[in-house]
Amino acid sequence: MIQIKRFKSTDSDFDSCLDKLLAFENAQDDAVDVTVASILADIRSRKDAALIEYTNRFDRLAIQSAKDLELTQDQLQHSLATLPDAERTALQQAAERVRSYHEKQPLSSWQYTDADGTLLGQKVTALDRVGLYVPGGKASYPSSVLMNAIPAKVAGVQELIMVVPTPDGERNNMVLAAAAISKVDRVFTIGGAQAIGALAYGTETVPPVDKIVGPGNAYVAAAKRRVFGIVGIDMVAGPSEILVICDGKTDPDWIAMDLFSQAEHDELAQSILLSPDAEFLNQVAQSIDRQLAAMPRHSVIRASLENRGALIQVQDLDEACAIANKIAPEHLELSVEQPEKWADKIRHAGAIFLGRNACEALGDYCAGPNHVLPTSRTARFSSPLGVYDFQKRSSLIQVSQQGAEKLGKIASILANGEGLQAHAKSAEYRYIKHR
Amino acid sequence: MIQIKRFKSTDSDFDSCLDKLLAFENAQDDAVDVTVASILADIRSRKDAALIEYTNRFDRLAIQSAKDLELTQDQLQHSLATLPDAERTALQQAAERVRSYHEKQPLSSWQYTDADGTLLGQKVTALDRVGLYVPGGKASYPSSVLMNAIPAKVAGVQELIMVVPTPDGERNNMVLAAAAISKVDRVFTIGGAQAIGALAYGTETVPPVDKIVGPGNAYVAAAKRRVFGIVGIDMVAGPSEILVICDGKTDPDWIAMDLFSQAEHDELAQSILLSPDAEFLNQVAQSIDRQLAAMPRHSVIRASLENRGALIQVQDLDEACAIANKIAPEHLELSVEQPEKWADKIRHAGAIFLGRNACEALGDYCAGPNHVLPTSRTARFSSPLGVYDFQKRSSLIQVSQQGAEKLGKIASILANGEGLQAHAKSAEYRYIKHR
Repeated sequence: MIQIKRFKSTDSDFDSCLDKLLAFENAQDDAVDVTVASILADIRSRKDAALIEYTNRFDRLAIQSAKDLELTQDQLQHSLATLPDAERTALQQAAERVRSYHEKQPLSSWQYTDADGTLLGQKVTALDRVGLYVPGGKASYPSSVLMNAIPAKVAGVQELIMVVPTPDGERNNMVLAAAAISKVDRVFTIGGAQAIGALAYGTETVPPVDKIVGPGNAYVAAAKRRVFGIVGIDMVAGPSEILVICDGKTDPDWIAMDLFSQAEHDELAQSILLSPDAEFLNQVAQSIDRQLAAMPRHSVIRASLENRGALIQVQDLDEACAIANKIAPEHLELSVEQPEKWADKIRHAGAIFLGRNACEALGDYCAGPNHVLPTSRTARFSSPLGVYDFQKRSSLIQVSQQGAEKLGKIASILANGEGLQAHAKSAEYRYIKHR
Repeated sequence: MIQIKRFKSTDSDFDSCLDKLLAFENAQDDAVDVTVASILADIRSRKDAALIEYTNRFDRLAIQSAKDLELTQDQLQHSLATLPDAERTALQQAAERVRSYHEKQPLSSWQYTDADGTLLGQKVTALDRVGLYVPGGKASYPSSVLMNAIPAKVAGVQELIMVVPTPDGERNNMVLAAAAISKVDRVFTIGGAQAIGALAYGTETVPPVDKIVGPGNAYVAAAKRRVFGIVGIDMVAGPSEILVICDGKTDPDWIAMDLFSQAEHDELAQSILLSPDAEFLNQVAQSIDRQLAAMPRHSVIRASLENRGALIQVQDLDEACAIANKIAPEHLELSVEQPEKWADKIRHAGAIFLGRNACEALGDYCAGPNHVLPTSRTARFSSPLGVYDFQKRSSLIQVSQQGAEKLGKIASILANGEGLQAHAKSAEYRYIKHR
């Protein structure tokens, strides 16, 4: 029997139990950080020479020349061509749907002229060059390549550079095929903090980028934190989470499997179910017990559900939505009748899956929206990865003679009020003859 | 004579001179960080009690009860009412223009249904509660209150909480008036790392917020970096910068004063002028010498221009734009004929001021666009503060029966390819009868 926590929202200690359940400190490891700092400094000063040394050491390779760290477009196309038909087609279909959704996202420039002839606007441009980190080994997911690369290309990023380590020379064909499909411009077989350093500072071989996105291990995360400011970075993600709200009328096996699909990611992943139907919670608990053994990743699922999972009985769906807003989950399934009605009550969630058919797995791969989503309650203030993360804005200000006088007078008063007299004079020069 | 650097873009060592000029490492002070960490931990555990202690100690006050840390709306309105008429009117006019510009910015929700009945969308919501840090003392700028508070209120933030320290009990009337005008909901007279901690974790008196914005000293910046993830933060800004591109036909006194207006902020501020006209650069240098002594902040201006300023002779305006894209300045003035033609060549800048009338000071106070802009070359990947910084997106996914089968088949293949069998099964349950 799996030991998954059971609460009722009416328990006197419910609030503190919920806080404890959600508590997760992304503790930074000082030893990791010290190592990362020294690798970054070394890459910054010795560039390719250091990059080759670290790559040979950590990935157990014997590269002689930095140009051997780059894969050609022919190699990427070969990976795509040699993929089993079903996988190639599925990747292409997923890419097409992801592209189609993201094409609704680009921001546009705008401008207007006000009554006094002042032109104001916002100019939107794409980032020039972006780096995409893809982990090697078991956490190497082709779907992540699509989800990170496609929004960048839709935004109009001119050069998208992927880095992916190949420990012991082992390449993931499906990942390289995904890079081909999403039109990644260049791929280097490097990883770890040394790859982040190469992308941030540039080496003789790897050009410096403006922003780095993509998941990675603790070393990669620490390196991204350290280069932030020199380049942009995406969020440093915490463990993945799902919150399911169910009215008790969905097949309990479906809901159990949805909880599994999150739990199988890793032992820190979090799966929580809210339902007003106590008997349904029992049925899901039984289904979990019944289905667990058959899952290839059953030990990860068990650890995740026992450590961080919960089945919570709520008073009604209104209360469930209020709790969801407090949790601000990465993924929220509304497995209920009239899901759109309840979605209106949700203010904080990375992605909202409406209705019994919309399981999270569809969103992870191919529904269209991005699967890079805010974790650890950060949906209170942040958004899914999107095209907008690869665009930025510049304000536009053009001032007529009439506007210069009108605006100048306001600016002069406020600047003098702040003790910034050069600001005041600079404004006044535009409408007062000074000599 | 002021010693401001002079370069030509044709100098053999120009690239390295430019790199050196731009180099600025926002070095973090370890001692500051250790102090900040302990203050944050103390606020988190002892809440109001710790907040009162630190406030009394650092601001030399004798507060007994946490409720004495809050200003009432009546107090804010009193500050507004007692302001000299000219200042009150200027603040109100500036606020009106800033509001009007920012009302063009809000993101909207959208959704669509594709051919197989799958509904996809993006739901946009405002942040619930935001904290606005305002420095005390000499760096306390009412214009900053407008620029940070108005976008938050336009976004629909329900509760905007301002914190501003009052060292020795001294309040800045104009800052409080700006808070009244921009409809800040609550104001606490606290500052430093203790204020950031109170906003991030909440105390008995100060409610926890979802994001913290606004400028501050090294302690505030270190505290914001530490609470990032628990709450959102805006960028940690570097010194302010202006780049002026001039064809040589603007009054040299105007350009000199524009360079002063940036330099007077602080000794690390950076003012750079690019022109193809060597004689014009001489005239600006002479104007700087002639005008400097009369400026109240002449010693700050001198230090800034001598340490970090430069007058650079370029070959033509095309080259000037290329250099501007490399610098990616916070503020860019295009003091040229047909500025819109040259603006088209600019890819990276926080704000672009077009034409001889559009001096930066107008943008700082009242043109309309935000004066919180990306510094230190971060305009390559980031944007002015805006309404969008107080909104976030949630993806929407609803799947028809037909869509469940179509999407489920793709997801199942890809999930199995990634070794995530629970994902595959969760998708398959929606279209394959499993018992």
